[in-house]
Amino acid sequence: MITPIHIFDTTLRDGEQVPGCKLNSTQKVEIAHALEALGVDIIEAGFPVSSPGDFDSVRQVARAVRHATVCGLSRAVEQDIKVAAEALRDAVRPRIHTGIGVSEMHIKYKLRTTPEAVIERAVAAVKYAKSFVEDVEFYAEDAGRADNEFLARVLEAAIKAGATVLNIPDTTGYCLPEQYGAKIRYLAENVRGIEKAILSTHCHNDLGLATANSIAGAVHGARQIECTINGIGERAGNTSLEEVVMVLRQHAELGFSTGINTRLLNPVSHLVSDRMGVPVQPNKAIVGANAFAHSSGIHQDGVIKKRETYEIIDPLEVGVDHSSIILTARSGRAALAYRYKCLGFDLTKNELDEVYVSFLEVADRKKEVGDDDLQFIISGIRAIAESHKIAVA
Amino acid sequence: MITPIHIFDTTLRDGEQVPGCKLNSTQKVEIAHALEALGVDIIEAGFPVSSPGDFDSVRQVARAVRHATVCGLSRAVEQDIKVAAEALRDAVRPRIHTGIGVSEMHIKYKLRTTPEAVIERAVAAVKYAKSFVEDVEFYAEDAGRADNEFLARVLEAAIKAGATVLNIPDTTGYCLPEQYGAKIRYLAENVRGIEKAILSTHCHNDLGLATANSIAGAVHGARQIECTINGIGERAGNTSLEEVVMVLRQHAELGFSTGINTRLLNPVSHLVSDRMGVPVQPNKAIVGANAFAHSSGIHQDGVIKKRETYEIIDPLEVGVDHSSIILTARSGRAALAYRYKCLGFDLTKNELDEVYVSFLEVADRKKEVGDDDLQFIISGIRAIAESHKIAVA
Repeated sequence: MITPIHIFDTTLRDGEQVPGCKLNSTQKVEIAHALEALGVDIIEAGFPVSSPGDFDSVRQVARAVRHATVCGLSRAVEQDIKVAAEALRDAVRPRIHTGIGVSEMHIKYKLRTTPEAVIERAVAAVKYAKSFVEDVEFYAEDAGRADNEFLARVLEAAIKAGATVLNIPDTTGYCLPEQYGAKIRYLAENVRGIEKAILSTHCHNDLGLATANSIAGAVHGARQIECTINGIGERAGNTSLEEVVMVLRQHAELGFSTGINTRLLNPVSHLVSDRMGVPVQPNKAIVGANAFAHSSGIHQDGVIKKRETYEIIDPLEVGVDHSSIILTARSGRAALAYRYKCLGFDLTKNELDEVYVSFLEVADRKKEVGDDDLQFIISGIRAIAESHKIAVA
Repeated sequence: MITPIHIFDTTLRDGEQVPGCKLNSTQKVEIAHALEALGVDIIEAGFPVSSPGDFDSVRQVARAVRHATVCGLSRAVEQDIKVAAEALRDAVRPRIHTGIGVSEMHIKYKLRTTPEAVIERAVAAVKYAKSFVEDVEFYAEDAGRADNEFLARVLEAAIKAGATVLNIPDTTGYCLPEQYGAKIRYLAENVRGIEKAILSTHCHNDLGLATANSIAGAVHGARQIECTINGIGERAGNTSLEEVVMVLRQHAELGFSTGINTRLLNPVSHLVSDRMGVPVQPNKAIVGANAFAHSSGIHQDGVIKKRETYEIIDPLEVGVDHSSIILTARSGRAALAYRYKCLGFDLTKNELDEVYVSFLEVADRKKEVGDDDLQFIISGIRAIAESHKIAVA
């Protein structure tokens, strides 16, 4: 049996909480259209109360999106929820996302209140949100560091108040996969009424574990994963949408599916990187410029013989034209002969040996050896050979 | 009991296998010095047989490094091993790293040989390497996709031939943490003679799981982690050194230690990024420019009240001066008042309300609001207030 996992994209909300990332309404609508085409189930469009500009963005995204659920963030504060509802008024499928901190750290030092007061505020917020929309997601901020028993009590109260989705954020990116998975399992097994709502993962990448934590969450009972394109977001960012989607796709044995059209992963990655002005590092999984580039000889030899020796994903599947064989000082004879063949030169064994020596000299000086360098090398070698022949003749 | 984990840095070998990354000998020595200061246990300096330039680099690194083990890569090929031994001759602690593919995919399609022949070649390579140096690491390429029983047979033979370290690469970055951890555990429990060698993780990040896989490996019996600065390397790169080190440090309950001086993580990251010309994305864990930057109002309010509400690592611990509070349209009153205080303005509640409206107008137009904008806003508001007073007077 295949279990569907909902992909909740928060590129436009948590992703946009990045220094220097500000998007205007037109850009948000453009990205929302791309996310809808990509097949995400929920688009979190912004935090309407945060500024008049963001209110307008959420309203325009709500009007533009036809199929996906459009979600707006709010704190457990009446004004926030009211403004979010107003921004979402024209959405086909509106969702209000509201919540409050539940860890001792957040209750004591940020909220400066008591656990009981937190439960009261959670209930009031969900009920108020429910007066505007049917679909209300409750976030239990800093759940990653919260006490499980207290967390379960908050969630039970939120479900009773009408919450349809329960977001369990590892706000600080602290959890190990086993810990986060165990927390989700604990909640799936111990929260009364849990069958009326779905559990959602929301992981941050401060220790580089967001993808593994999200997958652990799904394995142990979560049915929604919150993530962003390119893993952007505050600090070290959020879970990368492209990574979780491809893990679930490559590991069919987990028994999950998503509605994502993976061939759009790279185009959407480029769009978001460009509009937000946040570069993607070349070695980023799935969407980095080098994600399908091979430069060492051992790997190139393997990929030329059979792509799957060093590639688990067909680049076409994620919208990349082809894997690339890049010639550097770490390349071997196999890659060199292959590239010459592509250029129309069928080298003899002797020629290849001679070319390889010259190639390494060039490669030790340059970062990459281009086709023009190869043409130059082979012309030289063939000219010398020709002059020898003439001399012999 | 605290178990030490050896950090094996392969920035100069697997990390350098990146298109456009070529380092010259001087740069390799410079980075090797930085890695030694950082406290890595083993520096893999290169693949000596690959080119004359890399041979020279490994030789110079071997001469420059005083405390760390210096390692050179080779295939299970006599010439490779001989050249590696020659390049490492002057090292205080030399290690030869040799090995061969062990998955069906590699044996059938890349090596075009049989499992028995692979074992013979593995044994011959380790024995030959052992004739030059005491410390021989054997890599079982594509172990991640290899059959565990066959893998165990290869490793038993390698240990008998004298291997001191057994590297279990997830060459294609395919494994889930549970799978990789289970593989390491299987080997720790089933390889005869395993007490004479240590198991090493070598993970790739094609699905974004390299850090989680390496940690799973350590938890299940590995005592060495292979990694690179900034996670650079072919395709989506290798395990990030900074991530595994900080996971082990933040999660003391795992019971591991490393010899890394974490305060050098950021300086070394900058050095490698600069010399290799490979940018680090702003949202990279631990070493990204935004790793300790907060821009949303909710987070800023929390961090101003108590840093640990949204930060699990003190930035100073990893060589970053301070966490930053960046003012954007997602910032709230708390951050604004805090920044004004830093600028020498103690705002009244009324002033803050007025300033906040103007601030949001500016912030909706600009990506970041600077100190000059703030000065401009408050001067305007105070000038108007002043003129009212005069008018009243």
